[in-house]
Amino acid sequence: MSEAVGYAATEAGARLAPIRFERRDLRPDDVAVRILYCGVCHSDLHLARNDWQSTAFPCLPGHEIIGEVTAVGGDVTKVKPGAKVAIGCYVDSCGTCSPCQHGQEPHCENQATTTYNGRDKETGDVTYGGYSDHIVTREHFVAIVPDGLDLERAGPLLCAGITTWSPLRRWNAGPGKRVAVAGLGGLGHMAVKLAVALGAEVTVVTTSASKAADAKALGAHDVLISTDADAMAAAGGRFDIVIDTIPVSHDVTPYLGIAALEGAVVLVGVIGIVPAFHSGALLGGSKTLAGSIVGGMQETQELLDFCAKEGVLPDCEMIGIQDIDTAFERMERSDVKYRFVIDMSTLTAG
Amino acid sequence: MSEAVGYAATEAGARLAPIRFERRDLRPDDVAVRILYCGVCHSDLHLARNDWQSTAFPCLPGHEIIGEVTAVGGDVTKVKPGAKVAIGCYVDSCGTCSPCQHGQEPHCENQATTTYNGRDKETGDVTYGGYSDHIVTREHFVAIVPDGLDLERAGPLLCAGITTWSPLRRWNAGPGKRVAVAGLGGLGHMAVKLAVALGAEVTVVTTSASKAADAKALGAHDVLISTDADAMAAAGGRFDIVIDTIPVSHDVTPYLGIAALEGAVVLVGVIGIVPAFHSGALLGGSKTLAGSIVGGMQETQELLDFCAKEGVLPDCEMIGIQDIDTAFERMERSDVKYRFVIDMSTLTAG
Repeated sequence: MSEAVGYAATEAGARLAPIRFERRDLRPDDVAVRILYCGVCHSDLHLARNDWQSTAFPCLPGHEIIGEVTAVGGDVTKVKPGAKVAIGCYVDSCGTCSPCQHGQEPHCENQATTTYNGRDKETGDVTYGGYSDHIVTREHFVAIVPDGLDLERAGPLLCAGITTWSPLRRWNAGPGKRVAVAGLGGLGHMAVKLAVALGAEVTVVTTSASKAADAKALGAHDVLISTDADAMAAAGGRFDIVIDTIPVSHDVTPYLGIAALEGAVVLVGVIGIVPAFHSGALLGGSKTLAGSIVGGMQETQELLDFCAKEGVLPDCEMIGIQDIDTAFERMERSDVKYRFVIDMSTLTAG
Repeated sequence: MSEAVGYAATEAGARLAPIRFERRDLRPDDVAVRILYCGVCHSDLHLARNDWQSTAFPCLPGHEIIGEVTAVGGDVTKVKPGAKVAIGCYVDSCGTCSPCQHGQEPHCENQATTTYNGRDKETGDVTYGGYSDHIVTREHFVAIVPDGLDLERAGPLLCAGITTWSPLRRWNAGPGKRVAVAGLGGLGHMAVKLAVALGAEVTVVTTSASKAADAKALGAHDVLISTDADAMAAAGGRFDIVIDTIPVSHDVTPYLGIAALEGAVVLVGVIGIVPAFHSGALLGGSKTLAGSIVGGMQETQELLDFCAKEGVLPDCEMIGIQDIDTAFERMERSDVKYRFVIDMSTLTAG
C-alpha cells in the first residue's frame, strides 16, 4: 500500500477537504501514475453532493486525469515509468464479455469500475479519483498521451472530449456532414472543436444570442438561436447529426425538427427525464433519438492521437485544488469557458 | 376523363358506400391500372372516420393495390398494358429534391402525394385510392409484381410489408442478428415473416401468452411476454433490433431495455404521444429510438422481388367490398389474421 493525499467530500454538501488514504500495491497488470492535472466534470459536483443518491463517502472525484507513470506491475507491457498517460471515467472492467472484447468497456456486462465512487473488483473497496497525488489502475485503462498534446489542457478530453467524439465518429461526422451542437458548455465546446476538426459544417444551437461570438471563436460556422421559432423552423431538416449536450431535462422535439432525413439527435448531457413527445417527430423523417456515454479505450486513444495531430484542445481555466469549491459554484452558474483543470502540484504545495 | 366506381365514406363515421367519380386522362408519364385486389390498412379506417382531423370527404381509401395495366401515356417505358403492378401509399412526388433523388419519395421535400386523401400536384383535386375499379398514377409509383408472387395476397406488402421491411434493411436484419417484433397485427406479422426470411433470429414480444402459438406458426423462434417482468428483465440487452408495431401510445422503456448495446427500437406503429422516459434507457447502452414510415419505390421493388424469391406472403382474409364496414369493425378488435384484402371483382359483381 502507498499513502496518498487528495481532496474529498466527507458527506453530501461538505466542502472538499484534504484527506490521506491508501492506494493499493501494484498488481501484475497495474500501473502507478503521479497525477499532474485533473479536469473538473459536472459529474464530480453531482457525486460530491450525492445528487444521484448513489455516493459512497468520503467521495474523492476526478476522472479527467493526466499523469506520469511512476511504477508498473510485472506483467505490464503497454507503458514504462516516465510515460505520460491519461485516465478517464473507468479503471477496470471484466475484459472478457462481448462489449469488453469489442472496445466498449464502459458497457461491460459485469459492470465497469468507475474511476471514483466505484468498487474495486477484487477488494470491493470504494475507488478514489483524480483529485489526488497519484492513482493505481490496470494498464488497459491508461491511454498514451501522444507527443505534442499539451498536458495542461488534455485532461477534459477524457470525459467531455470522448463523450462527444464517440457519437461524432459513430454517426460519421466529417466533410459534407452538417452537425448541430446544442448547448455550449464543457461538452458542447468540445463537440464544436472536434466536429470542425473532422471537417463537418458545424452550427451551435443555443438559447442565448450572447453566445454567438463564443461559438464562432470556437470554430462554429453558424449559430442558431433555439428560442427563435422562425429560425428553428427555417432550419427544419438541416442537420445530419445533432449532438445534444443540454444537461437538464428538455423537450427533444425542436432538436428532432432540425435533424435531417434519417438524421440523429444524440443525447449526451441529460441524465433525467426525456419529456413526452409526438412520435411524428421521429416518423416524419425516419429520424433517431440516441443516447451515448463516453467511449471505450481504443476510441479514447484515437481521440488523443487525433487531437495531437490536429491541434485540438479544450479551452481550460487552470485552478489550484484549494479553489475546487469555488470552481463547483462557478460551474453551477455556467461561469467557465469551458472547463476547469486542477494543477495537481497545488495539492502538496499548499 | 374516365368514369370510375368505388366505395367511399361521404362523411366522418358514415358507412362506406358506392360512388361514381372521374379518373383523370392519362398524362404522358401516367399509367392506368385496373385494380384486382386492395389490402385494408388501419389508416383506411382512421382516415374514413377522420380520426386525425385531416380527411377530405368523400374519402375513398386503399393503398395496398394490386392490378393490371390497361393503358399507358406516351412517355411511359416502365410497363406495358397487361403488366401486373403494385401501387402503395404514394402516387406522386416532385422527383427532383434530394429525398426523391435518393429513393426516399415518401419524404419528398415538396410533399409526396398520398394515394388517397392527397392532392393532385397539377389539379389540386383530392386523390382517391384503391377501393375502386381502376386508378391512374405516374409510372414511377408503380412497382412491378414479379412472376410467382401471388396476386391475391401481395397487396399488404405495399404498406404493412414495406413499413417493416425498410427498418429491417436499414438496421441490417440478417444472419447473426436478433430481432424482436413487438405487437402481432398486420405490421407485426409481416415483420416476423420478413425478418425470418432475412435469416435473423426472431422473437415476438406480446402482452398475450395466447399469441405464442400464432407467433411460432409465423416462423418466430421465440416468444417473450411483455407483462412478465422477470422474463423481460432476463431478456435485457438481447435484441439488435426491436421493431415496435404497437399501434397505440405506450412506454418505450421496456423495449429499450431489451435492446442490445447500440441496438435500435424502431417505432413503426404508433402515431401519437411517446410518453416521458428516463434518458438512462438510451444512454445506458448507447441505444437509439427511431421512427420509420413505409419506404421508397426502389425499396418497394426490392421487397416484392425478395418476397417472390423467398415465398414470403402476408396471411390474408379475402373479403368482398360490401363487407368493408364489418372488416373495419373486426380490425378494431384485432379480429383478423392478419390482413383483410378486398377482391375488387366484387365491386362490379354486386
